[in-house]
Amino acid sequence: MPEFWWVNHNQTARQEIEGQYLWSPKTERSGARSEFYNNMRRASPGDLVLSYAGQMIRYVGRVTEFAFAAFKPTEFGAAGAYWNNEGWLLPVFWTSLTPPVRPRDLLEVLGPLLPEKYSPINPRSGAGNQKAYLARIPESVFDVILANVEYDDNMLVDGGSNSLTYYAVSESLDDVVEERISTDPSIESTTRESLIQARRGQGKFRARVQAVDGSCRMTGISNPSLLIASHIKPWRVCESSEERLDGMNGLMLTPDADLLFDRGFISFEDRGDVLVSPRVDREDLRRLGFEQLVWEQFGYAESPDVWQTRGFEFLQHRYLAYHRSEIFVA
Amino acid sequence: MPEFWWVNHNQTARQEIEGQYLWSPKTERSGARSEFYNNMRRASPGDLVLSYAGQMIRYVGRVTEFAFAAFKPTEFGAAGAYWNNEGWLLPVFWTSLTPPVRPRDLLEVLGPLLPEKYSPINPRSGAGNQKAYLARIPESVFDVILANVEYDDNMLVDGGSNSLTYYAVSESLDDVVEERISTDPSIESTTRESLIQARRGQGKFRARVQAVDGSCRMTGISNPSLLIASHIKPWRVCESSEERLDGMNGLMLTPDADLLFDRGFISFEDRGDVLVSPRVDREDLRRLGFEQLVWEQFGYAESPDVWQTRGFEFLQHRYLAYHRSEIFVA
Repeated sequence: MPEFWWVNHNQTARQEIEGQYLWSPKTERSGARSEFYNNMRRASPGDLVLSYAGQMIRYVGRVTEFAFAAFKPTEFGAAGAYWNNEGWLLPVFWTSLTPPVRPRDLLEVLGPLLPEKYSPINPRSGAGNQKAYLARIPESVFDVILANVEYDDNMLVDGGSNSLTYYAVSESLDDVVEERISTDPSIESTTRESLIQARRGQGKFRARVQAVDGSCRMTGISNPSLLIASHIKPWRVCESSEERLDGMNGLMLTPDADLLFDRGFISFEDRGDVLVSPRVDREDLRRLGFEQLVWEQFGYAESPDVWQTRGFEFLQHRYLAYHRSEIFVA
Repeated sequence: MPEFWWVNHNQTARQEIEGQYLWSPKTERSGARSEFYNNMRRASPGDLVLSYAGQMIRYVGRVTEFAFAAFKPTEFGAAGAYWNNEGWLLPVFWTSLTPPVRPRDLLEVLGPLLPEKYSPINPRSGAGNQKAYLARIPESVFDVILANVEYDDNMLVDGGSNSLTYYAVSESLDDVVEERISTDPSIESTTRESLIQARRGQGKFRARVQAVDGSCRMTGISNPSLLIASHIKPWRVCESSEERLDGMNGLMLTPDADLLFDRGFISFEDRGDVLVSPRVDREDLRRLGFEQLVWEQFGYAESPDVWQTRGFEFLQHRYLAYHRSEIFVA
């Protein structure tokens, strides 16, 4: 069953609608966690979102992927200057409403339906909650807003011609970083080439990962033709050339395992235990051939039957800690 | 056990050595098959190759991947004008010999060891065989050539820092095609964008493939987050924008299945039977979760137990025929 959300865009509505996403920092500037930012990771594919900006709801969107770690979009420019650079990007496919809806006009009906805590607008005055970003709303609020408007509801159905796949979105995020690397005069040209090859797990990075971790710990496969050199801390959020090329920041994985790891559906404890996200489908894991992950997730999570792969090197631990806290969809 | 080969480079030695590959057309200009061109698909990872040009052997190389379908390298320029455009590219990691070897000087020993048929040089006169390209040689010929020369034999060992993976090579081949598309003034800009998105199985191409073939026929997975829209006839060798964007030229596959199919380790009959290359390792298939392919390959190839997936649409047949004859490593 989909859940229902309401986003208060602040000054970045245009960028987020055109770009087909939502973006929030991971935390407040002070480092404090925010319920509204935490909701970014709670939204799931198929959930529906109302877009609120300038006191109007002009779009409704469908979440197409779980959020993933991404730097602040450069197109925010000055509008996003206040926020931390590290954040969550949530792909959302938007479609416009005709006519747009002014929630304040429906306050008599909406007020009693809105949550007491973390409401996107004040249930009594109708004023936007300045602190809110992505707020959870009951289905009834969603239904009231959309009761008398037209929109292309095919757009909200799974499938269609929507191409906001995780892959497409992460490619475009990576492109931005590659462009930055390509034009950074402080990087030597041979390093630049290695950094760009590392984006796709090739070149110097791959050779170094192979030296640390020559076979896939999920399948035991050691044939290099079948293995991808995957970054533990993703290439696009690495903070330096050293991190992007560090063999300790990599694992050799088969393509299926690479996708699950890259996407945050699995992660690892330092001693090698496999962690499985409760958000990934049981039957899908079985079909991908990871029968043991199914047991992990649904059978023996706390038992000694946990799937333990070989332990990691000490120098891999900090990258794994990043993956567990920032990439893994817990 | 590795096999041993000898290549007569003709005029493209520089390009092939620098580029770390061999390239031949698929057939003679007349369309006739050539033993020397067919050998391109017989060479296997780990095989060793002597590079002969200007009457000298100056390099020895290790084959790093099976050959795959690729257009004639643009860097051949006028030197390759005579050859057909469609060919095989075989990734080879070369290392130089000190000093180079002149086979004619060793003819007394080499002559009796060279094959009667399809020899790279005339066993009696020592003259290069003008018709030869990649010729099979006995290990003894290889040993005689390398008996008194020095070279870095680490380079010939599997692993090392060699980054000539299938993925890296196909990326660079795709880059050439993308560059051509990007600068082709006859293509409209919206089509150009779709064509470039199609390279990575995104955008319009992906949406069309999903409409034809919504789930992975190897695993049954239908969750779009776990599926890749793979071209049947590879993107880089398509002959038109229509072929690159044709939903009938695609399959939705999980990442492991995509790699096996893309790499030519599996293919399909029109009615849906899975074909498995005898060149792919049995234990690897099992570890990837394709237990049934192991049986296919080694158990019941001719029996009614053949793995039959759902049949293909008529309009997919011509692309499948291409895949079976040109991509599948039979």
